[in-house]
Amino acid sequence: MEQRISLVTLGVTDLARARSFYESLGWEGQTVQDTVFHQAGGLAFVLWAREKLARDCGLEDTRQSGFGGIALAHNVRSPREVDELLATAESAGATLTRPAATTFYGGYAGAFVDPDGHAWEIAHNPGFTLAADGSLTLPDFDSL
Amino acid sequence: MEQRISLVTLGVTDLARARSFYESLGWEGQTVQDTVFHQAGGLAFVLWAREKLARDCGLEDTRQSGFGGIALAHNVRSPREVDELLATAESAGATLTRPAATTFYGGYAGAFVDPDGHAWEIAHNPGFTLAADGSLTLPDFDSL
Repeated sequence: MEQRISLVTLGVTDLARARSFYESLGWEGQTVQDTVFHQAGGLAFVLWAREKLARDCGLEDTRQSGFGGIALAHNVRSPREVDELLATAESAGATLTRPAATTFYGGYAGAFVDPDGHAWEIAHNPGFTLAADGSLTLPDFDSL
Repeated sequence: MEQRISLVTLGVTDLARARSFYESLGWEGQTVQDTVFHQAGGLAFVLWAREKLARDCGLEDTRQSGFGGIALAHNVRSPREVDELLATAESAGATLTRPAATTFYGGYAGAFVDPDGHAWEIAHNPGFTLAADGSLTLPDFDSL
């Protein structure tokens, strides 16, 4: 297995609402057969009906709310961008779940859940390099 | 918000088991303060204690099993690789939840859940370009 993720698919209960939420944050996607595909760097970020996604995974969808056991993060280049993006997300219908604050690693971050309860952290982490194209490179932690 | 994901963090109940599972699949990570960071193309794939991740997201962890509402996919370059990777995953402790089969879009795919129940699809999709570095590019669906 090569060390990479090809797609991240969020199960959503209202595709139009989910698409609109991410559009409000600046994402542009293509809708194909009730699925919204967004190019996100070297992977695809996808919105699809939650029950279809569960079935496609061979799983039963027994839960409609609460922490799903996974979090996505979007890193930005300054603390100010953290505040701006959290405000944009809240205006677009997100629920802020952790107010922006300084973090133990010397960064600044806050968190929200999208209208379907999917968790996002918005972070400025000066230890993680963000390239011009937005790709993130981890440090060699041993060298820190 | 730039159109990208910086980190994907899986909440796990046994960090050593989770790390070992992904190592069995070929992933190499760095463990820092009870967190495993893997470079995965332009993002970081992270393993962290589920209760800490929930708390960090400002959420309560009310559920320990079942579909989490999100799926990751790993696309490969041939149907044979799908079969091989599903077999490797099963040997490593995954539960196969959908046997590999031809898909409606002319591909070949199957699905498993990792030891913490996180859903992965392994897919060969000839319509999604995989670059030599493993990055995925969506087609212009209108042109298909």
